[in-house]
Amino acid sequence: MDGFNDLGDFAPATIDELLALAKRLETHPEPRALEGKVLALLFLSPSLRTQTSFQAAMGRLGGSSFIVRPDLGIHGLEMRSGVVMDGDTAEHIREAIPVLASYGDVFGIRAFANKASLEADIEDRDFEMLRELSTVPVINMESAIRHPCQSLADWKTMDDIGVPRAGGKFVLSWANHPKALPLAVPASTVHMAAMRGMDVTVLRPEGFALPDAVMARARTAAEVSGGSVRESDDPRDALSGAHVVYAKAWSSASTYGVAEADAELKKDLGSWCVDDSWFDGAAEDCRFMHCLPVRRGVVVTAKVLEGPRSVVIQQAGNRMRVQMAVLHEILAGQEAL
Amino acid sequence: MDGFNDLGDFAPATIDELLALAKRLETHPEPRALEGKVLALLFLSPSLRTQTSFQAAMGRLGGSSFIVRPDLGIHGLEMRSGVVMDGDTAEHIREAIPVLASYGDVFGIRAFANKASLEADIEDRDFEMLRELSTVPVINMESAIRHPCQSLADWKTMDDIGVPRAGGKFVLSWANHPKALPLAVPASTVHMAAMRGMDVTVLRPEGFALPDAVMARARTAAEVSGGSVRESDDPRDALSGAHVVYAKAWSSASTYGVAEADAELKKDLGSWCVDDSWFDGAAEDCRFMHCLPVRRGVVVTAKVLEGPRSVVIQQAGNRMRVQMAVLHEILAGQEAL
Amino acid sequence: MDGFNDLGDFAPATIDELLALAKRLETHPEPRALEGKVLALLFLSPSLRTQTSFQAAMGRLGGSSFIVRPDLGIHGLEMRSGVVMDGDTAEHIREAIPVLASYGDVFGIRAFANKASLEADIEDRDFEMLRELSTVPVINMESAIRHPCQSLADWKTMDDIGVPRAGGKFVLSWANHPKALPLAVPASTVHMAAMRGMDVTVLRPEGFALPDAVMARARTAAEVSGGSVRESDDPRDALSGAHVVYAKAWSSASTYGVAEADAELKKDLGSWCVDDSWFDGAAEDCRFMHCLPVRRGVVVTAKVLEGPRSVVIQQAGNRMRVQMAVLHEILAGQEAL
Repeated sequence: MDGFNDLGDFAPATIDELLALAKRLETHPEPRALEGKVLALLFLSPSLRTQTSFQAAMGRLGGSSFIVRPDLGIHGLEMRSGVVMDGDTAEHIREAIPVLASYGDVFGIRAFANKASLEADIEDRDFEMLRELSTVPVINMESAIRHPCQSLADWKTMDDIGVPRAGGKFVLSWANHPKALPLAVPASTVHMAAMRGMDVTVLRPEGFALPDAVMARARTAAEVSGGSVRESDDPRDALSGAHVVYAKAWSSASTYGVAEADAELKKDLGSWCVDDSWFDGAAEDCRFMHCLPVRRGVVVTAKVLEGPRSVVIQQAGNRMRVQMAVLHEILAGQEAL
Repeated sequence: MDGFNDLGDFAPATIDELLALAKRLETHPEPRALEGKVLALLFLSPSLRTQTSFQAAMGRLGGSSFIVRPDLGIHGLEMRSGVVMDGDTAEHIREAIPVLASYGDVFGIRAFANKASLEADIEDRDFEMLRELSTVPVINMESAIRHPCQSLADWKTMDDIGVPRAGGKFVLSWANHPKALPLAVPASTVHMAAMRGMDVTVLRPEGFALPDAVMARARTAAEVSGGSVRESDDPRDALSGAHVVYAKAWSSASTYGVAEADAELKKDLGSWCVDDSWFDGAAEDCRFMHCLPVRRGVVVTAKVLEGPRSVVIQQAGNRMRVQMAVLHEILAGQEAL
Repeated sequence: MDGFNDLGDFAPATIDELLALAKRLETHPEPRALEGKVLALLFLSPSLRTQTSFQAAMGRLGGSSFIVRPDLGIHGLEMRSGVVMDGDTAEHIREAIPVLASYGDVFGIRAFANKASLEADIEDRDFEMLRELSTVPVINMESAIRHPCQSLADWKTMDDIGVPRAGGKFVLSWANHPKALPLAVPASTVHMAAMRGMDVTVLRPEGFALPDAVMARARTAAEVSGGSVRESDDPRDALSGAHVVYAKAWSSASTYGVAEADAELKKDLGSWCVDDSWFDGAAEDCRFMHCLPVRRGVVVTAKVLEGPRSVVIQQAGNRMRVQMAVLHEILAGQEAL
């Protein structure tokens, strides 16, 4: 496997193989499978789960990892092309990436959307530039428009708890938030649920529709899988019969990159906080999902978050398990450096 | 062994087994004992020795570790209950702890006293709340009132250098310091020395008596072990015949949580800095102990600290050794995740 | 091998053995060679390549490492002797170094020049003080006047690409830079090239001659190796027939430690930026070298840096490879702690 950038790069059979491998490693640990192998980790954006679950994943397979963050005792990274570097940044990403890649056997990179351009972020231009600079396989640890490790973990979580693929009703719901958040998780999530063959509804208030390109990609995936994708701004309609409510805040496409305008757009949307009433017309065993971190009392009530419908801890736990499978698939049997 | 929170949770025979295991691992390394095992480390307070000695301990036994600190590229951790998270913190400890626990086989947590309430800190309420959120065994890496890894290392150090248990005279002395320091080390130390069967004197100036609950707990331990516990504000009396002078600064209970009032209380106590004269009436081979970090010229003179009585480097070195024993005891033979 | 502080501490035959070991480990990995071994890493100055290449090197050999940086959640390190520690720093390096050394089997330390005194920095007084405090072998990860890991990697890089030893023409050229940089890399580089038996020219503008002691040391090395060392301020003369142009910015000795005076001295030296024209009279396959990080458009043009002459990524990649050899040589077969 030559890196892990987008669930859509893989056939459904490959997804199932990864999930089977994740399951096998849970019951049959392989603490020497990756001995001597090194995972390079570059965080251009913050992380709790991603960093720790990748480090733990390598450790459980006998390998090791190292972490670079621009805030951590390095000289400052320049990302712009063609710039004369007579200012604060002392090192260009065009040297840093190939150098760090040469120390690892696989390279995890996180770089959130810079929000200068919706079009550029949907095309993931920054991340693609970073990815091309690496000489070893790259794992996308969340870019402007993708979060494939989260999506694979979410897929596994639904399998684990018995949420049906075909016929499963998946609601991705916008939620309120004090900040204007990027599109990576909602875009990846709607695509993942469509790939999984589910009937997907994107529930969001006026003004918060996901970009057309994101919806079109999910619809194409649904055509292949036998699922469906629709949009709604009516919670009662959207949630009826739902097996999963996946809450997530995201920025409006219309005010993309302008936090103040986004805040103005949602100033009366405080009711978009998932509480018990959201589940009134849902399936009896409807689950609550979220990628974490989550704002209590803003995105979801503490009662729902800590209640029996919530599987957020399992989702996070599955991050490590699916990443073990991805790392194993990329590295085990790989030739020595 | 289901975690490591307080020396008092263990019978003396278990303490001796841990110390014997530490000794055995010094001479008979087991570099594969913990292969594939992962130690999660959460530092809500600063650390030099604790972080590095735990990482080294896991490495020497073939396992790995990962570190989380709120200052390090994460989204900010909320600890308050029932709060609406519309401010700076993006993640609640009620999600963060179980998630991080799910990536590890054992979980080291450090959280110093928040000093809002002496009673709450003596009961270690914050730490108990954190500990209960973990789904894997927890190691206390210093809480409001406990530092069991330090105490076990100190016990080992006294064994190593031949300080007697029964009949050994142990003086825990208050020392001057520019800051108002917490009670974890003095509370753990007096209890450890009492458990070890020693005759313990807590030497401190007027106003700096340890809280009654701390003294009562040490006296109870002494009753079991055959040791004794007393207090004194007279250095000459306290130090007479001492085998160990263990210096440590701590806050006054009367001004707990109010740094300015604490500073006012000790403004004339600059002489409470251990120098050669303190050992005039002590046992000939009386040792100087301190948990580090230590303020030279304030807590102790450089001459004493670097002189032949000082065993502070050995104490710190034994941190790694006893933690290897604790980790080995908790993890070796533990079922796979 | 009892540490790694200066290439000049080793006979040429030992250098060749290290380079042969590095080559062997590339083709014959030993992922268990250092199992249970621990590398302590103390960074008193920033790092990207050094930290990550050392961590990766230990991981590839089955060992582990831990990192301490004063900015990272520790209490602040005091380096001055004889000070009363009633201020911000809570721990003295005289405790910190031996404690951290006791957790490792080998100790990498980085401490850039403090620039208080040129004489003290040339004698590497601060680093020697730190080195003497360690109880395990020390690896110099860049001090005031030395960067032996970089120099060994550069030596290997020239061997790898076929730059001749005897008769090879090596130009170390000063380059422009917005900051006043230390002498460690130029001093190490001129000495390394002389040790390697090359004909070395130090090319620099008026006022930027390397200190006499640095030049004298290189000349002594050249006498042993059969190489030569000269200086020039004429690029055309210096670069004629060159096999290697190694660019590096450094401070003027005459304004050492005074950044503003250094900036004034070089205010008209913006043309000291390596571009294609520098290679007009050079050997046809003349290579461009730099230790990184490098300022594009200031030290070297992006065109040269990314062009076929540039071997900067290989140099950086060889950092890991030679450090694996150094760690293997120091640690493999070493007695257990």
